Amino acid sequence: MKTTLLVVGKTVEAHYIAAINDYTQRTKRYISFDIEVIPELKNTKSLSAEQQKEKEGELICKALQPGDFVVLLDEHGKERRSIEFADWMKHKMNTVNKRLIFIIGGPYGFSQSVYDRANEKISMSKMTFSHQMIRLIFVEQLYRAMNILNGGPYHHE
Amino acid sequence: MKTTLLVVGKTVEAHYIAAINDYTQRTKRYISFDIEVIPELKNTKSLSAEQQKEKEGELICKALQPGDFVVLLDEHGKERRSIEFADWMKHKMNTVNKRLIFIIGGPYGFSQSVYDRANEKISMSKMTFSHQMIRLIFVEQLYRAMNILNGGPYHHE
Repeated sequence: MKTTLLVVGKTVEAHYIAAINDYTQRTKRYISFDIEVIPELKNTKSLSAEQQKEKEGELICKALQPGDFVVLLDEHGKERRSIEFADWMKHKMNTVNKRLIFIIGGPYGFSQSVYDRANEKISMSKMTFSHQMIRLIFVEQLYRAMNILNGGPYHHE
Repeated sequence: MKTTLLVVGKTVEAHYIAAINDYTQRTKRYISFDIEVIPELKNTKSLSAEQQKEKEGELICKALQPGDFVVLLDEHGKERRSIEFADWMKHKMNTVNKRLIFIIGGPYGFSQSVYDRANEKISMSKMTFSHQMIRLIFVEQLYRAMNILNGGPYHHE
């Protein structure tokens, strides 16, 4: 199984790039993982929030392949404790054949087409985070999950 | 009201320091806010988890003053959405006279003495984050709350 985090727009700030890269590299010790970036829409000022969401949704759906298991990071998704997320990943590693794709949407959330395509929704918190922050939070949790499954010392329960 | 984030041990990695400073400075536009660091315990290898927790607890209690309203960031605390946390902050700004102290504990959590002194517990997520990450998450949410209360554009609902 290949795991991918699909995001809309580049991570801009240097300290987030550094922190995200750090966890990405550490996660790669355990699984095949990469971050795929859908370029940010241009001229968003001429678009309504709804139009921007629709257009981003089209780009997201285009980036997906048949057979991908698609998981949205969504405020209405299921929240899990870190060890529960690790168990969930273990189950996915045993059942998903091709790509496990996590998606972080744009500033206004996901379009209906993306919700329709998704297999599951998960939430990292009830709180809303910046796009850069949620990427960092996700990669840290993915690394933590892999470390838990491999009996590493990173996580204290 | 003065707001303080009390943490155990310095933030070490440069990219976290940069990100945390950024949100700290931005938060200061709205409220009096600082981060207070309790130096890390030395020779923790000779201590059990329980002993380390106890010793950290003593240092935490020593840093508190009578009249402080003490809020623990704790996995058993109440989770709120970002706008709910903003409302909660607004209420605190109207009711707390002296210091509002948020505390992030050490790797093994809080000792009973700290739980006994606390007025409230809040949780940022069901997930467990690294100490550096939870500091960053907290300052981003505090900034977000202040921006929400002041009608800023940072938060999309």
